[in-house]
Amino acid sequence: MYIGIDLGGTNIAVGLVDEHGRILHKDSIPTYADRDYADILKDMAQLSLKVIKDVNYTIKDIKSIGIGSPGTPNKKEGVLVYANNFKFHNAPMRAEIQRYIDLPVYIDNDANCAALAEAIAGAAQDANHSITITLGTGIGGGIIIDKKIYSGFNDSGAELGHMVIHVDGEQCTCGRKGCWEAYASATALIRQTKQAAKENPESMINELVGNDLDKINGKTAFDAARSGDKTGEKVVKDYIKYLAEGIVNVINIFQPEVLAIGGGICKEGDYLLNPLKELVQKHVYCTDIPQTKIKTALLGNDAGIIGAAMLGKE
Amino acid sequence: MYIGIDLGGTNIAVGLVDEHGRILHKDSIPTYADRDYADILKDMAQLSLKVIKDVNYTIKDIKSIGIGSPGTPNKKEGVLVYANNFKFHNAPMRAEIQRYIDLPVYIDNDANCAALAEAIAGAAQDANHSITITLGTGIGGGIIIDKKIYSGFNDSGAELGHMVIHVDGEQCTCGRKGCWEAYASATALIRQTKQAAKENPESMINELVGNDLDKINGKTAFDAARSGDKTGEKVVKDYIKYLAEGIVNVINIFQPEVLAIGGGICKEGDYLLNPLKELVQKHVYCTDIPQTKIKTALLGNDAGIIGAAMLGKE
Repeated sequence: MYIGIDLGGTNIAVGLVDEHGRILHKDSIPTYADRDYADILKDMAQLSLKVIKDVNYTIKDIKSIGIGSPGTPNKKEGVLVYANNFKFHNAPMRAEIQRYIDLPVYIDNDANCAALAEAIAGAAQDANHSITITLGTGIGGGIIIDKKIYSGFNDSGAELGHMVIHVDGEQCTCGRKGCWEAYASATALIRQTKQAAKENPESMINELVGNDLDKINGKTAFDAARSGDKTGEKVVKDYIKYLAEGIVNVINIFQPEVLAIGGGICKEGDYLLNPLKELVQKHVYCTDIPQTKIKTALLGNDAGIIGAAMLGKE
Repeated sequence: MYIGIDLGGTNIAVGLVDEHGRILHKDSIPTYADRDYADILKDMAQLSLKVIKDVNYTIKDIKSIGIGSPGTPNKKEGVLVYANNFKFHNAPMRAEIQRYIDLPVYIDNDANCAALAEAIAGAAQDANHSITITLGTGIGGGIIIDKKIYSGFNDSGAELGHMVIHVDGEQCTCGRKGCWEAYASATALIRQTKQAAKENPESMINELVGNDLDKINGKTAFDAARSGDKTGEKVVKDYIKYLAEGIVNVINIFQPEVLAIGGGICKEGDYLLNPLKELVQKHVYCTDIPQTKIKTALLGNDAGIIGAAMLGKE
């Protein structure tokens, strides 16, 4: 058995996970992210102990603890170098957890953990090479090669969202202009939907949110489009085009057997996936050969816990 | 000892290569690329036998034969699925060579071979993870992970040149619009230089080529820029910007320890590399950590032979 900890800016989620990536029990508490790392890590350790005890296991039953965190880890040292969700730098996560629990502790980026989870127990479990992208505030990317996380020589690769697809385009939070996530994240879709609603006051989008544009979310344009609203249809079409451009780039570079897409937008199902697959099929570099399967991610919010737990299995 | 065969659209080059990636002897003949595969592969086998004999080795001294070819291989089957340089499809390269020489035969894409060569005997020999790009007619890409070629589940990945960096931008030969190679290959630089010369008749570029724009090559804009020609300076500046955008993408995705750049344009040396490195340093995603080293490739035209030979060592 393994412990997986999904450290988020809002919540800390801990799960007891078996070797197949199944969660036996889980619990969560608020992160209170502006605290010192020592306080946050103490809570993480104590919640882990509680989760183990809750189902009558003991530390002896556990092989390792894995932590999935936003930001850039130093995997060898077990340190979180930097994450813009937190105030601290170079937090010695392994050492802090080991003050309370004498077990091996692994750490990796949360998007990498999600990709590992999908590769072991989710949409990519039959693939040796897979990529999982998560469409949220940004675009998280995780690269799995031979069932292992690939993140470069300094543990900070796989930033697929920070691939420029439009030189000198939209400003990205990373400082560059034209990053994929500035066009195809949920945040970008919301921005595009707001803009379209402003420019088209007759659009159903305005009605759907009671003319309060701040209520627009990643679903609004899809809802309008499904009802035949022309503005909504155009927002969705343009969004899927940008999403496809980045996905084709990723396929041309990696040719993964499976590319899994996670995040709330995936709930749109075939309404998103069918036109997306059509565009991808039209634009990938080589079509004489077996093609990447595009799937929706299966593990949802549990991917973080599962992937973190599976770090100890790698 | 290993035999490496670099199959090009113009020439077939064969080398006898030791386990450290050093060429002991090499020779080449014209490809006559419009022939049937059987004729071309017969020539490849016979030139290999000649190269071995020329330095008084025998087949018993050779561990394997490697072929680097343009296009998409099926590595497991030893087949060249497709290459737009040749008229044939699905050429059984391994089987054809083995009609003449009873040795293991490996096949891979030429850009992948160049990257393997740089990783074993060139600019990236100290790095486990490296990327080599070659700026030529297109942009060739090779991805080395743990000293091995990565090319996806269907052997056709690493098409770094066909990463769109400008949605709806310049038409690329692959069918997409805005690919990196449509902005940063030698072909693109020549197109950009011609365009600038036309629009700026006073530019020294026109003088350098005796007002015959067809004589413009990948060096022309650099030569003009070095002499202080404003148009030349702008062409070079814009070119380096596009080159940097793609390189930053590649670094954000892979964080390789070394990124090596090959192709004739690299002869510009620091005049190319210094502003390029400055732009890259400014734009990479994470700077709190060890950074990718950008180097010029060291092996030039020999990279194809060396990398092909080293396929047998993988």
